[in-house]
Amino acid sequence: MTVNTKAFLDEWHRIVSSKDLEALRDILAPEVTLGPPPYWMRLEGRDIVHYLLGLIINTIDGFTYHRQWAEESELALEFKGRVGEIELQGVDLISLDDEGRVLNLDVVLRPANAIDALAEIIRPQMMRFLNDKASS
Amino acid sequence: MTVNTKAFLDEWHRIVSSKDLEALRDILAPEVTLGPPPYWMRLEGRDIVHYLLGLIINTIDGFTYHRQWAEESELALEFKGRVGEIELQGVDLISLDDEGRVLNLDVVLRPANAIDALAEIIRPQMMRFLNDKASS
Repeated sequence: MTVNTKAFLDEWHRIVSSKDLEALRDILAPEVTLGPPPYWMRLEGRDIVHYLLGLIINTIDGFTYHRQWAEESELALEFKGRVGEIELQGVDLISLDDEGRVLNLDVVLRPANAIDALAEIIRPQMMRFLNDKASS
Repeated sequence: MTVNTKAFLDEWHRIVSSKDLEALRDILAPEVTLGPPPYWMRLEGRDIVHYLLGLIINTIDGFTYHRQWAEESELALEFKGRVGEIELQGVDLISLDDEGRVLNLDVVLRPANAIDALAEIIRPQMMRFLNDKASS
């Protein structure tokens, strides 16, 4: 594991467990992209990815990381949690840039009803965010 | 990477790329469990897990592995492919037993409509398999 990767993981786990959304912004590359669970289309740019990650962190209850893998700047982090009563398991697939910031993040998870429940809670908040951005 | 893990990965990739379902059976532990994308409930035992994995391998078109991680006997394997026109990305989370066979396998994937499309194709075949097993 490189120095950058080790530092990133320490900070990532600190941010998620303390829900430190301000610090989350600083470890995202400006050109970060995110592949979300419900859609194939990727979200692009720090503002929208930061906002969506914040919603995910705040919507999944009992969010905990389990197995974790790192090969150079490519990471796979297994997590578990709940949306309401629905248990879920997922993986964050992360590529870091040269400065140790998130360049690409794909979130894959199971089961299907957890993806639906997560999307149902998050969608209206994302729509409001995008609408505010479009009209500002 | 242990000797077992290296041997397992070589065989796993050979099996998936050649769709060698007979050999697939031999690298599953008798007590193997599988966490499928659509449901939280785990499938248990070599017969049903072998059958479901065969269906998955035969249903996803253009199945290719990408990033891959190994820590001792715990593996994460990223794959991509299509169900019909729907592109998908997923991860096989695999725990090996002491003999280098699959003990637990969780399949997480995105996007949601790929999970639905996969389940719709596979469900009737699984029902038929379970029905045959129950009545034999």
